[in-house]
Parts: sequence; C-alpha cells; structure tokens
Amino acid sequence: MAGNSFGNLFSLTTFGESHGPALGGVIDGCPAGIQLDLDKIQLDLDRRKPGQSAIVTQRKEPDEVRFLSGIFEGKTTGTPIGFIIENTNQKSHDYSHIKDSFRPSHADYVYNKKYGFRDYRGGGRSSARETASRVVAGAIAKQFLKGIKIRAFVSSVGHITLDKPYTSLDIDQAEQNIVRCPDPEKATEMESFIKEVRKDGDTVGGTVTCVIENLPIGLGEPAFEKLHAELGKAMLSINAVKGFEYGSGFAGTAMRGSEHNDLYNEDGTTKTNNSGGIQGGISNGMDIYFKVAFKPVATIMQTQPTIDIEGNPVEMHGKGRHDPCVVPRAVPIVEAMAALVLADYKLIDQARKHNNI
Amino acid sequence: MAGNSFGNLFSLTTFGESHGPALGGVIDGCPAGIQLDLDKIQLDLDRRKPGQSAIVTQRKEPDEVRFLSGIFEGKTTGTPIGFIIENTNQKSHDYSHIKDSFRPSHADYVYNKKYGFRDYRGGGRSSARETASRVVAGAIAKQFLKGIKIRAFVSSVGHITLDKPYTSLDIDQAEQNIVRCPDPEKATEMESFIKEVRKDGDTVGGTVTCVIENLPIGLGEPAFEKLHAELGKAMLSINAVKGFEYGSGFAGTAMRGSEHNDLYNEDGTTKTNNSGGIQGGISNGMDIYFKVAFKPVATIMQTQPTIDIEGNPVEMHGKGRHDPCVVPRAVPIVEAMAALVLADYKLIDQARKHNNI
Amino acid sequence: MAGNSFGNLFSLTTFGESHGPALGGVIDGCPAGIQLDLDKIQLDLDRRKPGQSAIVTQRKEPDEVRFLSGIFEGKTTGTPIGFIIENTNQKSHDYSHIKDSFRPSHADYVYNKKYGFRDYRGGGRSSARETASRVVAGAIAKQFLKGIKIRAFVSSVGHITLDKPYTSLDIDQAEQNIVRCPDPEKATEMESFIKEVRKDGDTVGGTVTCVIENLPIGLGEPAFEKLHAELGKAMLSINAVKGFEYGSGFAGTAMRGSEHNDLYNEDGTTKTNNSGGIQGGISNGMDIYFKVAFKPVATIMQTQPTIDIEGNPVEMHGKGRHDPCVVPRAVPIVEAMAALVLADYKLIDQARKHNNI
Amino acid sequence: MAGNSFGNLFSLTTFGESHGPALGGVIDGCPAGIQLDLDKIQLDLDRRKPGQSAIVTQRKEPDEVRFLSGIFEGKTTGTPIGFIIENTNQKSHDYSHIKDSFRPSHADYVYNKKYGFRDYRGGGRSSARETASRVVAGAIAKQFLKGIKIRAFVSSVGHITLDKPYTSLDIDQAEQNIVRCPDPEKATEMESFIKEVRKDGDTVGGTVTCVIENLPIGLGEPAFEKLHAELGKAMLSINAVKGFEYGSGFAGTAMRGSEHNDLYNEDGTTKTNNSGGIQGGISNGMDIYFKVAFKPVATIMQTQPTIDIEGNPVEMHGKGRHDPCVVPRAVPIVEAMAALVLADYKLIDQARKHNNI
Repeated sequence: MAGNSFGNLFSLTTFGESHGPALGGVIDGCPAGIQLDLDKIQLDLDRRKPGQSAIVTQRKEPDEVRFLSGIFEGKTTGTPIGFIIENTNQKSHDYSHIKDSFRPSHADYVYNKKYGFRDYRGGGRSSARETASRVVAGAIAKQFLKGIKIRAFVSSVGHITLDKPYTSLDIDQAEQNIVRCPDPEKATEMESFIKEVRKDGDTVGGTVTCVIENLPIGLGEPAFEKLHAELGKAMLSINAVKGFEYGSGFAGTAMRGSEHNDLYNEDGTTKTNNSGGIQGGISNGMDIYFKVAFKPVATIMQTQPTIDIEGNPVEMHGKGRHDPCVVPRAVPIVEAMAALVLADYKLIDQARKHNNI
Repeated sequence: MAGNSFGNLFSLTTFGESHGPALGGVIDGCPAGIQLDLDKIQLDLDRRKPGQSAIVTQRKEPDEVRFLSGIFEGKTTGTPIGFIIENTNQKSHDYSHIKDSFRPSHADYVYNKKYGFRDYRGGGRSSARETASRVVAGAIAKQFLKGIKIRAFVSSVGHITLDKPYTSLDIDQAEQNIVRCPDPEKATEMESFIKEVRKDGDTVGGTVTCVIENLPIGLGEPAFEKLHAELGKAMLSINAVKGFEYGSGFAGTAMRGSEHNDLYNEDGTTKTNNSGGIQGGISNGMDIYFKVAFKPVATIMQTQPTIDIEGNPVEMHGKGRHDPCVVPRAVPIVEAMAALVLADYKLIDQARKHNNI
Repeated sequence: MAGNSFGNLFSLTTFGESHGPALGGVIDGCPAGIQLDLDKIQLDLDRRKPGQSAIVTQRKEPDEVRFLSGIFEGKTTGTPIGFIIENTNQKSHDYSHIKDSFRPSHADYVYNKKYGFRDYRGGGRSSARETASRVVAGAIAKQFLKGIKIRAFVSSVGHITLDKPYTSLDIDQAEQNIVRCPDPEKATEMESFIKEVRKDGDTVGGTVTCVIENLPIGLGEPAFEKLHAELGKAMLSINAVKGFEYGSGFAGTAMRGSEHNDLYNEDGTTKTNNSGGIQGGISNGMDIYFKVAFKPVATIMQTQPTIDIEGNPVEMHGKGRHDPCVVPRAVPIVEAMAALVLADYKLIDQARKHNNI
Repeated sequence: MAGNSFGNLFSLTTFGESHGPALGGVIDGCPAGIQLDLDKIQLDLDRRKPGQSAIVTQRKEPDEVRFLSGIFEGKTTGTPIGFIIENTNQKSHDYSHIKDSFRPSHADYVYNKKYGFRDYRGGGRSSARETASRVVAGAIAKQFLKGIKIRAFVSSVGHITLDKPYTSLDIDQAEQNIVRCPDPEKATEMESFIKEVRKDGDTVGGTVTCVIENLPIGLGEPAFEKLHAELGKAMLSINAVKGFEYGSGFAGTAMRGSEHNDLYNEDGTTKTNNSGGIQGGISNGMDIYFKVAFKPVATIMQTQPTIDIEGNPVEMHGKGRHDPCVVPRAVPIVEAMAALVLADYKLIDQARKHNNI
C-alpha cells in the first residue's frame, strides 16, 4: 500500500536509497527446506552490478548481499529472509547540482511535490539501485522454482532489432557477450551503437525479451490477477519501463482470428503460440514469452535547460558515471521479477490444488 | 488472492458467470456522501452492452444494474455497494458443442486443467461478460473523481491505424460513431473493415487509447506500485488484452535520451510529454495517455479443428452471436479500469498528504 | 481496507444494510470440486435467524440464501461464490424515533461522525443482520474443512456460568435446547433468567465457548498472524463482542509456569491443554478452545435519556422486537467465523507444505 | 500472508531470529516530513530490553537500532524505513539441551512439524526477541500520532491485582518502579512476589492494561476491521498472550443492558464508558482501555520431563537467564502494537475523510 512490497504468498519488501547506508529487503513466505546456492544469488547480482563491462556505468559498487535471517544450515527455514547490501559508494558524490534543481525526465520533481522534500542524493529511493534487492529475491525465487527455466535477453537497442523468433535462437548465447543479445552479429552491432551513443554524451533505449519454459499448466487466476497482468505489473514496476506485451502482443492486433488462434495438438499443446503460453490469464503449458520496453536513460552527458525548486530556469549537466543504455543490466532484473511472480502463483496453485476432483 | 478483487482503498470484487443467474460485485471503500447520478452508470453499461450497434454482437442483454446496499437517499454511505446484473439471456443457449471440447484460444482447456471441471456455458467465469461489473464500479469511481477527465477511444482496428497524436483530435467525437474512433474518416474505414471481416466469418484485433486529464500531481507510489504499473495490470486484466504501453511506449525505445527527455517549463509542466504524465511511477500533472492492445476475438464463424476432453480431434464451428471486433465495446471497460486505479491512488494520496511539511 | 472483507486465500466480502433491499457476500478462493450440501447451509442460517424460539427476537425474516455464481452441477467451480439474502422485512418499520437521535451504546453516533450521515433504518450497516452473510460463508468453509469439528455453545448468561470443563460435556446436547447450553440444568436456569430479564424490558450478556477438534498440526503463522490472533480478531469482529481468551486465558495469568506448562506424551500430544491447542501461534494437534464475551444488547424496552443530532437531550424508548440476550443466536456466528479462519489457514498451509523436507 | 507483516497503510514487516546475525524490520507508509526524535525510540527499546532491572532476565543485549533508509536530515522521507538491531549476544550460548528436544509449552515442537526442521538456537523466530522490532516501529508510530497518548502499565502479577479503575490512577507513576505498576504499594507487592517466584525457579503470569487518550472520533471500520478487533489481533500476536478484553470486557457479560449502556452527555461524550471508547468498531472520542493476559513464562529453572525429536522421554532443565514474569517488559510492546494499529487507522481515516459532506 506504499508500494514497497510485491507478491502475496511469496513476497518481497524492499527498502533503501541509492546513497543511504544500505539497501535491502525481506523475502517472506519462501517455503522451508530449500537448500540455497548462495553463489548463484551473487552471480545474478554481478550480472546487474555497475562496472561489469565496457558499455555500462563505471561506478564501483561491490553489491555484496548479507543475509540476516531465515536461513539456517544452508536451508530456508520458512521464516522471513532479511538481507542488506551496504552502499559502499555512498559518500563520494557531489550532489550540489541536483539538490535544488530537477533533472529532466527524472523523478526529482514529483518526489518534491509528493513528499514535500526529497533525499536528493543520486535519486534516493527512485534510483534503479533499488532493483539490486529485487535481484536477490528473484535469485531465491528461481531456486524455489527448480525445473522452470526463466531466461531474458536484449532484443533491441535503439533501432537495432533482433527480429528472429526466440525459438530460432540459442538463448544461452546471450550471456556470452556484454550486450546480452543471443545473436552474436546483432550483439556486435548493438555494442558499437551503444559506444557511439555514449561518445555523443547521449543514451538510447531498448527492449528485453523473456522466455519461460517448463511452467506447469494452471498458474494464474481469472479476472484481475491474470498471470500476464501480474507479469505486466512486475515489469512496468522496473525503472525506465514504458511498455509490456506478451505472445503476439501489439502485432497481434493486426491479425485475424483465423490466423491468430492457436490450434490444439492431441496432447493439449498448440501448433502455434500466439497466446504466449497464457489463456484467460492461466498458463497453458506452452512457453511464456514477453517483451519489455525501456526508455533511454534520462541522465545524459549534455547540457540541458531545466528549472530549480523555485521555478527559475537553470542549466544542468549530467555528472558522474551513468549507463548509456540500460538494457544489458536490465536482463537479470526482468528475470528476477518474472521469478517473483511465478513463485507467488506456484504457491497459490499449491494452496488450492489438493481439493480438486 | 483468487483474482476477483481489484484495488486496496477503493476496491471492487466481482462474481458471476456468463450464464449463471446473475453477475455482480461489491465496491468497497468508496467515500461517503457522494451524490450518485445513476443514469450515468447505466449509460456506461449501455456503451458496453451487446446489441448496441451494427458492428457488435447482436445478443440481447439489457444489462440493468440493481444496487443492493451502500446508497441511501441518493448518496454513498461509506459502506460497501453491492450490486447485481441479472443474466436474462441465460437459458437460451445450446452448449453441447463446447461442453466436452476446447475452443481454440479460449480458456476452456486451462480451466479444465486448473479446476478439474468447468462451467462450460458460454465461457463461464472467463467470459468478458464479467467486465459489466467493472463498468458499474468504474462509473462510480468516475463520479468520485469529479474533475478528472478519463476518455478512451479506438485507435486502430486491424491494420487501420489512427496515427495522429491525441492532442490533435477531438476525443469527444469518438462517441459519435459506432466504432468509437474520434477521426470520422478513419471510423468509416474501420467500420467497413469490421463488416468485411465479419462477412468472412472472421474477427480482427485493435487498440484502444486512453487519455486522462486534470489529474493532480503526486498520485502513484514508488517501487512496485508505480501508477503506470497498476494501470498496466488493470488493462492487462481485461479479456483479450495482449499489451500495454504509456507515453512514448515501445516507440520510445528507439529514441535517444536527448530527444526523449521532457524539458520543464517554469511552471513545472513539460514542453513535450514522452513521459506520458508519469515520472518514477508518480503523476506529474501532464496528461496521462496509454494504449492497450486487443487480440482478435477467438470465436470465429468458421470451422476449426480442435480436441475434445479426451484429446480426440474434433471439428468445431462457432455458434451464436459474437463480436467481430472487440474494441468498440472495450472503450468503456478501459475507462472503467483506469477510473478504479485512479480512485484507489487518490485515496492513498489523501491518506498521507496531510502529514507533509 | 474498508473493513468488509475477511481472509486471504479463502475470503469473504459482505455487503448490505439491515433494511436495504438485500444483503449478501462474495466468497472467494474456495477450492473447486467441493460437493456442497445446500441444506446444511440453510440449517446454519436457521440457527441464527430471528423468531426461531421463545427467547429470541420475534421478528420474521426467512433468511433464505440465493446463490448467484461459483456453483455448477452442485459443486464449487473455483470461481467466486456470490450470494444474496433478500430483506423481506425491510419496509415495515417506523424509524422516526432513531432518525435524528442516537441510541445509547449503539453505533448511530459514531456513524454520523465518521460518514457525515447514516442509513438510520434499524442500524443500517452496523446491524448484526450482517452476520447472516458470515454464516453462509462459514457453512461453506465447514464443508471445505471436512473432518474438522467446530462446535460452539453458550457457556454463560449473565451471572449463570457453566463451570465444567468442556471435556466433561456432551457438546452436541447444546442444540437440544433453545439456549444452546450443553448442560440441560444450566440451560433451564439460563432460559428462565433470560425470560425474567425480558420481562423487565432489559437485556443481559453472556459468553460463547467454541471447541475445534481434529485440526492438523501446523496451521497458523508466526509473528503477527498467529492462529489465535486471527481467531481473536474474527470473534472481536462479531457485533457486541467485548473479549476473547483461549486455552487457560485470563485465569492462566494467575498460574505459575510449573503448573501451566503442558507436558508431552510420547506421541507429541500433551497431558494438559492450557495452551488451548496452539503453541507459538501454530496448532499443535490438541483441541482448540476459546471463549467469547458478549455484552448485553443495547436496545432495551425501557425509556432512556439520550441526545439528538443537535445535542439536545431527548427521551428514547426501544421499539420493535429485539433479543433479550444475544448468545443463543451467536453460537452459529462464532462457528462460522472460526471456520473462515481455519479455511484460510488450511489453504496457506497447503501452499507451502509440499516444499518441506 | 506468512505472518511477518502488520498493518496496511502504515505497516511493519519484521525479520530475524533470536540468535541470527541481526533482526530488524521495514516500516512502510509512514508519511513524509515527520521530524523524528531518535532518542525516544531508543528509550522505548530500553524499556523492553533485557537486563534493565532486578526482576527481568539478566541477559545482556544492547538493543541498539541502526536505521538504514527512509530518514533524511532527521525527517521521514515517505519511503520505507529499514532498520536492524545486531544480535551481539548470539554466539555465547549452548543449545545442545534443546537442539533435539522440545521445551514444554514452547513452539519447538510445532515449528519442527510445520517447517520440517527449525533454527533451535534460543527459540529462533518464535523468540520474543522479535518484539524489539515492533517497539522500534511503534515508537515511530507514536511520534506520527502526536497528541494521542498511549500508555500501558502492569495491572496484575499472578494473583496480585490492581483493582482500581484506571481513572483513579496516576498512570505516569508506572515508569517509576521496575514492575511498571502505577500503584506504588501494589508494585512493591508484585516485585516481592516475582522475586519469590524466581527463587522457586518458577515463573508467573500477569496482565497489562493500556489506556489511549485524545483519539479522534471515527477511527475504525465496520464489519471485520472494527478498531477493537484489530487491537485484539495486535495484542494476541504478542508472545505469551492468552486473552484480550476492552471496556467492560468479560465482566460486562454479567451486566444488564440498563446498567451497561453508556448514556450521552450533550456534547456527545458519555457519562460512563463501558464501551471502552469504541462503538460498532469505531472510536467515539472517549478513552480506549483494554487489558491483555500474559501466561507464565514457559522456561522454568526446574527439571521437567519432555520428549526428544524421536518421541523418547527426556529430562530438561532450563538454562540461561530468563524472565520470571514477562509483564514489566511487555508494557512497551503493548504500547507499540497499539500505536501501530492507530497509525494505520488514522491514515485510513484521512484517506476518506475529505470526501464527506
């Protein structure tokens, strides 16, 4: 109800500002007895962290997670898992240029209006640094979802688009390059383009596609909590996201029913998958796939006119080390949010399944 | 937690199957003392109901709402507003063709898998008939939101797209034609196309655009409950929706930061509105606009192969009177869901506002 | 969040005023496939309804429930169960005496202050008539909880107290007399006392004890959602309830640890049961038992001084047919609320159980 | 939904085991702009902490809270307030005696059954040490509730009962003695009794009474979320609590309506206050008062028979430093939970108030 919790039966509450002492979260409802591989959690954090490659921000943040509860002798205990990530980089910045002015297309202005004042250090709560906590929780959700494969990858950077259907790609290849695009040629193009944009002191948007395999049939609830509605909310809650589509998505609106309908095979699978693995809000056993649109990063290394807190016009120039394009680092965040959604629905499914006929 | 409620402080719970005795809902949390115009509620129901024009399903459903509680002497009392809509059309159908077979791209199959059996009469709970209850609640939310303008319209049917920015349109014109497209020429084109598609026994998809004006600054919560995340969830929970984008949306991913950023005027408004009226998940006082993608209706008047409950191949032919294109009737549903989201956030905003500095 | 819903995975939302057209509710999350015995539901309604015996209000309300959804071919479908109970008695009253005055120890005054005005007809939403909807939902929850025995009975009326431990009683006897006290002698005493009090135009309070048998071990959650905390909330949410205690309760505060501790048998059961079947908020497999305190009914057939809406002193005399003592009719309500709590916790338990070691 | 969160608009999520690295919590929804007095928070922690006096456990835990987010320049920012309390005492214990055996009337047995195994170090999550986090959050809630006075005190220890009505007491005197009883003579009696009990290696129960003054009229919601229902749940969620009553409570059940009804003064206050400041679940402007029953501490310094994990009979002797009576330390916990309930309802009230007539 204040926006910092996600999920019902498997839930995450996060806290922390980009430049406070620490950020962290509480994972509640994770079933007991899950043997956790802590290295895999750190690995996902490393996929998100700054400084990991030549095309992301060069800020240094070790992003090491410290678990405080809910794990005993390597296994989840069924009690809440509290964790923190210390902000080691917190004191090194100079914020005088944004303290009293509003960065264009950032949340500075609305935070001031909504709360009366704001923690102006590097975006405060509105910083995408908050997503580190999501990655921790998502990595635990992934381990709970053993057997279900959740993989995301970059499907476009600016105008450079990976047009092939995901089924023709080797998605694992995405982790072999710094863009996280599974098509090596496209990845090279994208990398060059990001570097070119950065040289201009500019930024660019892109899309991330996510594919979920091996999901059982029956996850999702009718009416308001359709599986794709919750996935959509999860993705739209990630910083800089402007759109979400699943299955045939926006392109499907131009199709006729006779070509869009997915006809059944005798085993209940479908010959095509315009549905994107979801019918009536409920998983149908086919792959789920969806695409997430990220806007260009708002902080650019160019001078922009803006206003200060009194409404006076001022000039502002981006400082510090920022991402020219957010999608390579967004890949593990998309996966994490997908995992959180699925973990919640899996528990809901288990809750009521045993009373079925 | 079972998917039939939406909202927190201003909430709606719906119930009802398409061919049970009645459907209805409970609106909870609507503040006391709101003088309700019941005609306006019925008007929105009429905009959604079958049989209203030559291009929608010709089924007859009066869709008259009966309020059972929460209204006294014409005003809301602050207690829950219960209402029902009787299903007058419930007994006239023959369901033998779908009882034991699964309509392609419908929820029949997943309902059977999830629940063990299903109410097979006309889609049961998965029928879009459930949205009638949403329209009732949305119409009350609109009255609570007095002064805030929420208008939706059809922005594409199949490949016919209204390309003009909404700011160049007279949105009120949308209600002057049966397609609900504010551009009369495009509306005529769309109407012809829908009729042509219907003649083929086929269906087609489309998009609905929604514009919200006069929203105060500060609505929305950071992190997981960003205003657009909840709007996205609301829209994706409508039957047949495959995608959601707001502001620059998917097109924005191809832009550079320097062109995408919305620069401030001295009064805090912005010169452009790629943000779509939302920054960091919080309304910034500019118009909110978003687009919703609807797939082609799955029921077509053509013979399709499918399987029965035992997995045997069978032939199926659409029966009854169905919509060739869902978007004209979806317009009031999109508005209703937007109103429900905003009513909830307005109350949340009021809850905490008075403690600001 | 507006107080009209209860439960998470198995939830009930109620609506309706005592003298509006109808009251009703929505049960959401009840698993699919439960064969419902509708007669048993009506039976519980009959145990609560007015006019059932010589010691309760002689108002006539048939209290017949009409189900609108969620049940198909006699079984729950997994979708929300909507139902209504028409208020047949709604037009026969004269409310002029309470329209502008506040009945002492009723909610009239606070409703006016909270909402600005109120539906003054017979208590409106604050009427205990709302509990009819709870009884419907509780009766369905009981059927879902097959095998778990939930029985309540009257354990005191005024100063007349049933002092024997419940284990020495034949609880089923409670339904053999109109007081619903399982001790026939005490029941006779209580009945006489209630009649005497009524003759005085007065009312009297009492207690209801509830015993739950055959509950599996492990229901309940640590910290804030301890099983007894939710049971306590459920009971305190019933009209006229002033207190709740479970196990040794208030009497246990005077005991020493050495006498209060429940020592284990080798099978994990305990030799005594001061714990009341709950340890650390989680069921331990022993019987759960708790006691609920009901105040005397506030409407008395005597003249009382009070104030009107302007604060002027006025005289008020109870009109209509009211209960001299609420506990006989409260018995099925206590059972219903207990069943709702247990149904919710049973689903939560099932959600996470399968991931245990 | 896993029991570790409390509240809706003003919420607390806690995590942490008694002997893990740290415990802590996240306070979400606290309005922005509240100038926090951090000393007052620590003061409440000190009132709860071990080792504070001769009649409580002599364990040493500094219980220093470290805030990680949500506070900037001394004021709340409106974003989540994360905090931790390090467990400095965590390594000094020997748990071999409880690792494989179940302490009578502790949660050991049910945790093992529910979760498959347990963190056996000192009670783990079931330890009352968790309430330290509640005290932190409650202390912040108190500051948000400026002007509303919430004071609790010990009203009985074993059979020694403070029988005077709270209105005849100087409640502030409670903090002048180590028992926290506002009657100095009774306090002395209670202190002696606690020491005597401890000398016997035994423990004893007691009650805590809480009085809330200056609460505005109108807080609380009808039906399921009555103000006293939520207060009851809050209190019953505290470790070792067995009962809750407010206003006339259990004693009120023996009264007649004619003596129990609270008659109005012309200003809307009442001449008596059997209602305990709440009518129909909504505050009426009179003092709220309620009583909470605590069982005797289960850990006694005597040898008790019990069973081990295989069901074999074993002998167990309490080790370490434990409270002979929990009520003196429970006083700030009761206040904290009351403050959390009120903060939540105050926000809910503010949410809807401005739409009243």
